[in-house]
Amino acid sequence: MGKERVCLAYSGGLDTSCILAWLLEQGYDVVCFCADVGQEEDFKAAEEKALKIGALKLVVEDLRREFVDELCFRAVQCNAIFEDRYLLGTSLARPVIARAQMRVAQQEGCVAVSHGCTGKGNDQVRFELAFYAIQPSIRVIAPWRMPEFYNRFAGRNDLLDYAAKTGIPVTSTKSKPWSMDENLAHCSYEAGILEDAATSPPDDMWKMTDDPRQAPDTPADLTLKFEKGLPTSLALDGKSITNSVDLFTALNKIGKIHGVGRIDIVENRYIGLKSRGCYDSPSMTILRLAHLDLEGLVMDREVRQLRDQFVTPAYSRILYNGLYFSPEREFIEASVLESQKRVNGQVRVRLYKGMASILGRSSDTEKLYSMEESSMDSLEDFKPEETGGFIGIQSIRLKKYGLQKEEAGEKLSRA
Amino acid sequence: MGKERVCLAYSGGLDTSCILAWLLEQGYDVVCFCADVGQEEDFKAAEEKALKIGALKLVVEDLRREFVDELCFRAVQCNAIFEDRYLLGTSLARPVIARAQMRVAQQEGCVAVSHGCTGKGNDQVRFELAFYAIQPSIRVIAPWRMPEFYNRFAGRNDLLDYAAKTGIPVTSTKSKPWSMDENLAHCSYEAGILEDAATSPPDDMWKMTDDPRQAPDTPADLTLKFEKGLPTSLALDGKSITNSVDLFTALNKIGKIHGVGRIDIVENRYIGLKSRGCYDSPSMTILRLAHLDLEGLVMDREVRQLRDQFVTPAYSRILYNGLYFSPEREFIEASVLESQKRVNGQVRVRLYKGMASILGRSSDTEKLYSMEESSMDSLEDFKPEETGGFIGIQSIRLKKYGLQKEEAGEKLSRA
Amino acid sequence: MGKERVCLAYSGGLDTSCILAWLLEQGYDVVCFCADVGQEEDFKAAEEKALKIGALKLVVEDLRREFVDELCFRAVQCNAIFEDRYLLGTSLARPVIARAQMRVAQQEGCVAVSHGCTGKGNDQVRFELAFYAIQPSIRVIAPWRMPEFYNRFAGRNDLLDYAAKTGIPVTSTKSKPWSMDENLAHCSYEAGILEDAATSPPDDMWKMTDDPRQAPDTPADLTLKFEKGLPTSLALDGKSITNSVDLFTALNKIGKIHGVGRIDIVENRYIGLKSRGCYDSPSMTILRLAHLDLEGLVMDREVRQLRDQFVTPAYSRILYNGLYFSPEREFIEASVLESQKRVNGQVRVRLYKGMASILGRSSDTEKLYSMEESSMDSLEDFKPEETGGFIGIQSIRLKKYGLQKEEAGEKLSRA
Amino acid sequence: MGKERVCLAYSGGLDTSCILAWLLEQGYDVVCFCADVGQEEDFKAAEEKALKIGALKLVVEDLRREFVDELCFRAVQCNAIFEDRYLLGTSLARPVIARAQMRVAQQEGCVAVSHGCTGKGNDQVRFELAFYAIQPSIRVIAPWRMPEFYNRFAGRNDLLDYAAKTGIPVTSTKSKPWSMDENLAHCSYEAGILEDAATSPPDDMWKMTDDPRQAPDTPADLTLKFEKGLPTSLALDGKSITNSVDLFTALNKIGKIHGVGRIDIVENRYIGLKSRGCYDSPSMTILRLAHLDLEGLVMDREVRQLRDQFVTPAYSRILYNGLYFSPEREFIEASVLESQKRVNGQVRVRLYKGMASILGRSSDTEKLYSMEESSMDSLEDFKPEETGGFIGIQSIRLKKYGLQKEEAGEKLSRA
Repeated sequence: MGKERVCLAYSGGLDTSCILAWLLEQGYDVVCFCADVGQEEDFKAAEEKALKIGALKLVVEDLRREFVDELCFRAVQCNAIFEDRYLLGTSLARPVIARAQMRVAQQEGCVAVSHGCTGKGNDQVRFELAFYAIQPSIRVIAPWRMPEFYNRFAGRNDLLDYAAKTGIPVTSTKSKPWSMDENLAHCSYEAGILEDAATSPPDDMWKMTDDPRQAPDTPADLTLKFEKGLPTSLALDGKSITNSVDLFTALNKIGKIHGVGRIDIVENRYIGLKSRGCYDSPSMTILRLAHLDLEGLVMDREVRQLRDQFVTPAYSRILYNGLYFSPEREFIEASVLESQKRVNGQVRVRLYKGMASILGRSSDTEKLYSMEESSMDSLEDFKPEETGGFIGIQSIRLKKYGLQKEEAGEKLSRA
Repeated sequence: MGKERVCLAYSGGLDTSCILAWLLEQGYDVVCFCADVGQEEDFKAAEEKALKIGALKLVVEDLRREFVDELCFRAVQCNAIFEDRYLLGTSLARPVIARAQMRVAQQEGCVAVSHGCTGKGNDQVRFELAFYAIQPSIRVIAPWRMPEFYNRFAGRNDLLDYAAKTGIPVTSTKSKPWSMDENLAHCSYEAGILEDAATSPPDDMWKMTDDPRQAPDTPADLTLKFEKGLPTSLALDGKSITNSVDLFTALNKIGKIHGVGRIDIVENRYIGLKSRGCYDSPSMTILRLAHLDLEGLVMDREVRQLRDQFVTPAYSRILYNGLYFSPEREFIEASVLESQKRVNGQVRVRLYKGMASILGRSSDTEKLYSMEESSMDSLEDFKPEETGGFIGIQSIRLKKYGLQKEEAGEKLSRA
Repeated sequence: MGKERVCLAYSGGLDTSCILAWLLEQGYDVVCFCADVGQEEDFKAAEEKALKIGALKLVVEDLRREFVDELCFRAVQCNAIFEDRYLLGTSLARPVIARAQMRVAQQEGCVAVSHGCTGKGNDQVRFELAFYAIQPSIRVIAPWRMPEFYNRFAGRNDLLDYAAKTGIPVTSTKSKPWSMDENLAHCSYEAGILEDAATSPPDDMWKMTDDPRQAPDTPADLTLKFEKGLPTSLALDGKSITNSVDLFTALNKIGKIHGVGRIDIVENRYIGLKSRGCYDSPSMTILRLAHLDLEGLVMDREVRQLRDQFVTPAYSRILYNGLYFSPEREFIEASVLESQKRVNGQVRVRLYKGMASILGRSSDTEKLYSMEESSMDSLEDFKPEETGGFIGIQSIRLKKYGLQKEEAGEKLSRA
Repeated sequence: MGKERVCLAYSGGLDTSCILAWLLEQGYDVVCFCADVGQEEDFKAAEEKALKIGALKLVVEDLRREFVDELCFRAVQCNAIFEDRYLLGTSLARPVIARAQMRVAQQEGCVAVSHGCTGKGNDQVRFELAFYAIQPSIRVIAPWRMPEFYNRFAGRNDLLDYAAKTGIPVTSTKSKPWSMDENLAHCSYEAGILEDAATSPPDDMWKMTDDPRQAPDTPADLTLKFEKGLPTSLALDGKSITNSVDLFTALNKIGKIHGVGRIDIVENRYIGLKSRGCYDSPSMTILRLAHLDLEGLVMDREVRQLRDQFVTPAYSRILYNGLYFSPEREFIEASVLESQKRVNGQVRVRLYKGMASILGRSSDTEKLYSMEESSMDSLEDFKPEETGGFIGIQSIRLKKYGLQKEEAGEKLSRA
């Protein structure tokens, strides 16, 4: 009888190469899987390495379009943000990667999936909750949570020894003193020297943004068009880009030049630890700002308030915590779509020395904003007396509050 | 029998000067009131003008300390923000101004208070709701909502004619094609040419921020210290500033130089109109960012989430809508204070070409963040197996979701 | 040139009869409108009276089906409730009535609509906000807010005098010492002797519920079936009712006999006053309870929590405040529908002496609840060790809290 | 060297007796702990049994006062309820029990605590999260989650065999076909025959409530007084009770007679399973209803709305999930207290045949409700025209919505 097959998320690095060797050692056949979510990576080299170590094959899937269309643009559409600043780059990639890995696992007849995530991070949770939702019967092998593995490979040297012993090729490149994860939405930096939250990250760390201090002295101005809250075209340097992946990539490129989208925070991981993370996400930063600005012009106030207080935080938390494949994400996403029916228009954005800012906005179809009506000078269709009544009615409750305070001897007029 | 007295919020400009003359014409004695909330203003000249027109007196009150301590710092403490971007500068000043005006009205035996706010704006609401809460029996005279006034003074020329007729001195300075409101927290710009939401504001409009493109090529780095979420010291250029007003003013100054704190939005007024506003608020921008960052380091995740979803939006909306003197503000403010008990530490901030960014943060007293614990490499006090259990339990619900989907023929693994 | 036409919401009572005469006196032609929302009313007599006073005609529209289908069942579907207890009977009827009145106004070429609501209540707001949304250009004549009307008719005797003078037939029936509003969803009682919030309403006040103390000693048991959260059949006394209006009416009838659905509260009106209201709403009470119970069986926990905190209160407040025709109602309603996709099943309910209670529930199609899985005794598909991991991870944050407390000298173990 | 000591939560039943014997078998010394939270229990017999089996001692702590004062009344004060119906009886008792058990463990020098909770329930989570917060270093022995235990004792017969073997006295009383947990706040019933969610619980199951059908034909009327939202006196049958435990007990007694407080639901456990629970909680039901009613009279509308939407659900979920000893509970509790500053007054309640209902309410000190003001007939201090302005301003936004709809060809006036 044949061996059981495992589908391993493989990066070509030391960790997953050792896991691959170890899985083989445990008696599994291994199909390696690599997701192309826009990161800089030599898939050919990874394949050679995997095969050399003993994998049956390495399957690469180009997920860029579904990543941008289904995740990144949806996040823009609801202004997703975690703890006020993190634009969720890693969280956005996980669902498409997990889904593709499960597809490969199913096509290849694997009984289990495996990954190289550590036991303290968010990613293990994001991947595995996705795996279990997609195929509840799947088995997950998470070596970094298995005592027989993590005790054996307690430090980097143990991995190097094992690599030497099992013939895993080790690149001589000195590893960076932090770990990175890159995709179209961002590059993340954490661990290592970044763990000292008081210290600034080194200037040469950032990969997707140039140093704002080295950015051009001339700003770049661009125009983004949205339909139903989704970016549909980018006008830049006289060109217009409408293909979603191209638009996203072009924004990353111009954003990089102008150093836009760096973020450095201490965040709260799902498993209850705080961790420091640095992220650069040019495209997401620019798109979110422009989208937010357009909503001011075209979205109803009350819909916006309800959306802001419930939909945006819920969607962001769901994504961060790895609950994309869940009833609550479906539920919230329906609200996102409903809220965006009239978010149509364009926004002009300036990029300059690390910052994106708004130059102006307009909409051909939406008319909630009216120059005439908002004008303080015009009384057309407006009876100022009505505001008096409005205030009068609003004050009924507050007068009672004032009387109550007075009675209680708490003077509201005190200095 | 003597005339009834009115306390008028007086700025010395054409509008409130005409209102002053008109109130006198209606048979009132008028006490003028001027609040010093840090705006650039010649109170001496205003007094002379008011007396010349016929006011009994002009009372100036220096409200800068209470403005900064009670309003601005409280807003920082809860990260107050309206519609994701506006830092509420005008809204913050209104409560202290209204309270002081009512104090003056009461001291001077006035039966009514009056102001020059237009009938379409937020400020009339903010002032009057405050007046009514502070003294429920007060009478409010809002000329711009009274047909006998607004019909008579339908345009600027009518005001100029009236000024000529009643001997109101008119300064020859050409008025700007927008209206402004300035205080320590910000300067706001709206109306006039800004009503075209698609057009960028002119470069020479901004008063509290220099043009980022003209800002120094060398960043300014500073350190802000917080205790219980309140700014307690600013270290800048080797000096340490602890006095709240001085700290706030110094931040405004350095922020101005580096062009930090500009914002340009279309917002939703309380009375249901959309309007375009531009604001520059250096201090508030820097303080809010630093405070937010420190919270990442020292605040419990769940407290933060509850605060983010409940306290911050409620407090911001309450302020924007002019409901400072209300039971709900008291209620929410108690939550703000409770949430900040452990928000102690310092944050290093960089200002550069229009942007404020974080360099690092630390706390001597708070220990929720631990380098050791957050480290991916350390397994001290951490059993990775437990995360497996955590994921397993979380997946119970999601596996049912997956089965439900499968049964319904909606494959989660599809591309 | 012809007279301007007004469409008046006409009940046949003294108030609206006087308003009718007064409108004629003001020089309008008047089309009277009567909505049939299930209240006990002699439309024939009302028509005769209206014509006698001088109306052009009286149009009656049967709105029962749209009332039940579009409003009552939607409210059940999202468990709508105001301030924890009021089931919104009046608020639910207003949108369908206002819509129908505007239809009639448009068909009859009216330039204005009119109603007999008082100036302190919620109904004027509900009607008029609906009117303005449906036809922004419409004119509203609200006599009870017009000084020339309310000063002239300061008390009931003024109305009676006017009726005598203008030949309005007055029925001799002594009016009740409270005011009522009836429709299929409830009968409301307020004002008059009910204004003393400490006093119990008289036993003979309630119209849609018999006194629980006189109710049968034998309970009535019934079964309600829901599809996508909407009631689709009622099984009672061996009969099955599926027509929505019939189902609703049958529930009202059996609920009346058993005295189910009385509520007596002090509530907060939209205009800022508190008022005491009594309501009996048998059908709504029973349906809401059954729906709520079914959701326990079939709804995902997280969807439920988001719905509970976000959708239900928002929808309830929107309805209460008369904002049915609004972007926010559309937005929220989309969420309601999304949340109910799997709310399928049946619930057995017992009515007895004023109370509805649950006997049991089941679903043929939904499987989130599983006897086997929830059983404490079965470990099939369940690894108890995982709960240990779950608890361990959850405790990471709490252990830090405990250490913090200890350090601060606040012992958590104190009595 | 001495044996390690464990503090075991001991009930005297078969399960915890076997755990006691098993712990001894594992080489521990065992201190047994029994919490008196008002349940019916023979502590003397439990002590004898524990000692006979081999415990060092059994410590009983009377926690009734802290249970009522700190937990039950606090829950009443914020209307705590889980998933719309469960009054949290078990969840309320867990924090005081866990705290007392930890006190005993610390006093007795125990290195670990142990309990007999199963691996699928909420209680293990509630107990252990409390243990870890109170003493982060504590070790927890949860036999029902340990394979060596649960595999050995796979069924009741294994426990009986072990009891026989180890000399544990087994009472001959036939165990009920469901499990129960009793305290002052309620008795809970779950598992066994109740796992069929469609079947009604047997009539003889309920312990704290008599069958409503057997309840007296004469209602019981009582008056509850609250100060700052806490019950301070109960007037019943001419007597007044102010002691909190006595008041709570007296309400339980009269509530039992009238069959008030039964609930039967399917709920969502913290660990993600649905389970069916039945509960009877007379006191909590009556107190919550009365408190809710009083709030209508005395609480500001906006404070109430904020509290309803955030504080009540958060506090309830925190309790249900066992997070009492947490930063978020402290945070939310501060809000509860702030919201209750003016909740003073009395409420008359009627108990009849299973139902509690309101007869009336009043307050000597609070004046937000005013008969005069709420009266539709009185226009004192009220200008009806102002409501016109209020509506006019509110309609600005809705008119735009109407125009938008019209333009889109979606007629709002359709049937």
